[in-house]
Amino acid sequence: VTGGSQWKSPTRAGGKALPEDTRRHNRGMVLGALFRSGPQSRADLARSTGLSRVTMSDLVADLLAEGLVEELGRPEDQTIGKPATLVGIVPDARHILCLDLSDEEHFQGAIVDLAGKIVERRTVRRRARTGGAAAALVVGLAQDLLAASDRPVLGVGIGSPGVVDDEGTVVEAARLRWHDERLGADLAQRLPVPVHVTNDANAAALGEYTFGGATGKSMILVKIGQGVGAGLLIDGQLFLGDRFAAGEIGHVVLDERGDPCTCGRRGCLETAVAAPRLRERLDGSAAKTRTAILRAAGTKLGLALATIVSALNLHEVVLSAPSDLSSEAFRAAAYDAIRRRTMPAVGDHVDLRYGALGEDDVLLGAAVLVLSSELGVQ
Amino acid sequence: VTGGSQWKSPTRAGGKALPEDTRRHNRGMVLGALFRSGPQSRADLARSTGLSRVTMSDLVADLLAEGLVEELGRPEDQTIGKPATLVGIVPDARHILCLDLSDEEHFQGAIVDLAGKIVERRTVRRRARTGGAAAALVVGLAQDLLAASDRPVLGVGIGSPGVVDDEGTVVEAARLRWHDERLGADLAQRLPVPVHVTNDANAAALGEYTFGGATGKSMILVKIGQGVGAGLLIDGQLFLGDRFAAGEIGHVVLDERGDPCTCGRRGCLETAVAAPRLRERLDGSAAKTRTAILRAAGTKLGLALATIVSALNLHEVVLSAPSDLSSEAFRAAAYDAIRRRTMPAVGDHVDLRYGALGEDDVLLGAAVLVLSSELGVQ
Repeated sequence: VTGGSQWKSPTRAGGKALPEDTRRHNRGMVLGALFRSGPQSRADLARSTGLSRVTMSDLVADLLAEGLVEELGRPEDQTIGKPATLVGIVPDARHILCLDLSDEEHFQGAIVDLAGKIVERRTVRRRARTGGAAAALVVGLAQDLLAASDRPVLGVGIGSPGVVDDEGTVVEAARLRWHDERLGADLAQRLPVPVHVTNDANAAALGEYTFGGATGKSMILVKIGQGVGAGLLIDGQLFLGDRFAAGEIGHVVLDERGDPCTCGRRGCLETAVAAPRLRERLDGSAAKTRTAILRAAGTKLGLALATIVSALNLHEVVLSAPSDLSSEAFRAAAYDAIRRRTMPAVGDHVDLRYGALGEDDVLLGAAVLVLSSELGVQ
Repeated sequence: VTGGSQWKSPTRAGGKALPEDTRRHNRGMVLGALFRSGPQSRADLARSTGLSRVTMSDLVADLLAEGLVEELGRPEDQTIGKPATLVGIVPDARHILCLDLSDEEHFQGAIVDLAGKIVERRTVRRRARTGGAAAALVVGLAQDLLAASDRPVLGVGIGSPGVVDDEGTVVEAARLRWHDERLGADLAQRLPVPVHVTNDANAAALGEYTFGGATGKSMILVKIGQGVGAGLLIDGQLFLGDRFAAGEIGHVVLDERGDPCTCGRRGCLETAVAAPRLRERLDGSAAKTRTAILRAAGTKLGLALATIVSALNLHEVVLSAPSDLSSEAFRAAAYDAIRRRTMPAVGDHVDLRYGALGEDDVLLGAAVLVLSSELGVQ
């Protein structure tokens, strides 16, 4: 089982719901309620999901047998009525192996538990490896994480730079020289667990949506790193676009007479905002000039975001950047540009903020990908 | 029953599927299959929907009793096996009353049958009426259409300028001076049929998607009229955004030092592309200058679309404009600008074209709104 970044709803497009789909859907609902709201009685779960008590008892019995949930005794505050046993997720019942391939210097790995806690980290230096050598590094890191885990492993989740299709193939990642690199399929052949791959900004968006501070169902996360990319959640689902390239805004040309870009054109968003270009400009600048440089870059990002925010009437816009570039000057300038360039009915309600997960957003999003794909958690 | 522009899937968010939802869903699937693929046998319908033959027989019996479908004899090409009776939609079993309020001079009305054919038109001159007087004109036009119909009426569908919420209230339509105008609710009180209202560009997008030449599941339609707005379909569903303003791109500022706009700012997309501004510039120009003017305007639209197309990796971009402004020069310039400003992996696959329905797109989209809301047709 490789790739795939969206939990399919039990009602297939143009087809009827099958019993196994319904079971999986209901199971995902129960786990989702426990993830979101913590330990609850079977009766509470039946109420919040709309399922019958009999169905709920069966589902909970299955989950207990699998060790995914446990009985936690009775609530302390219950004084009247028949005592109800609480049921809760066992955070370390399973481990998820997560990889973040977005950094220039290192591939990051982590073992993540079911509660989204990072229980162990592993890192390998990339040493400028590309192509098959870079892919081999990914396999080694995943095997290393698997060996380090002392729990049953739910799956491997990977956030990769570039365009990633729904089979876990990296269609194009220029920096790693990957073209149709079958990362998901190859890894799944080598490891005894399911593998899921998505674009790094998509993973970061999933992470912020699930474990960060998201308040709505739709949001965009802009990830500033070696390049600039975005992850887009529409009604709680990653939106991938016509050819899995949704969010690839780094090479939108803002100014045809702007600075030359690695892509051969001029004035791409990346020339203004990507981390290497920004650091180049900041290096050796005085503090005052630094703020002006960060404001100018933020303004450029705001120009692009103004159009996107208007087209989608988005409320939540989340920024993800390396800690040395995460500045209020940059954020404020981007926000000001959005406000100046969108109509107030839209701009008044934009919330532009840095993510709550910092640089772990890709790792935790990779965990969400596995949780949703393997357990049906919504 | 007012407002509402999306057919709800039977699986509610976080809740279980109820029997009546399932029946409605299955019924919508059957009607959808008949709308899309024409007359079929019950066995074919069972196969294409995945429902059992027994369930299908029951569903078809219900639809026959309601007069929505009819038996059409046996297929001419069937030579072996048990003869199968074909079942098909009865196009004039119901009428839909459709209103297009987007034009400056007239409110347009039409009676549309279940096959999307306009069987009668009615028009009222607006004579610059706004506020309550404009709303009264809408009521009169709907009543006029109702009186003119000789079939049971499925409902009223309306495409209105401005931001329209999911209860059929026009939150803001500056030109008509409507602010929180409860168009859907007021009309539903006066007419004995359900009323559904959406934004005019959203309606046009629905119309093109269903009755036009759409090939994919996601598309944007840009409607150029008194203003500029867009309708966005994501995976076959209208996307409305945080506050129902998705697609409101007319007041995205492209150039802060550009021409003054009615909104008080400068350089909004509307100042370059809206019909009145464009006609002003074209009036009295020589043919050669006309082309240059249209190309300049198309380029401005392309600037905005490049960012949107990249963010969503959209393949289908449909233009809707008054016939006097629908020119190849405009389209080609917009296309060139999109290509110059998006990365080839995205831009190479953009299909930018005028819609197949011409100026009837809003009327026919209003019909789709009613079909999907009232019959569950997907």
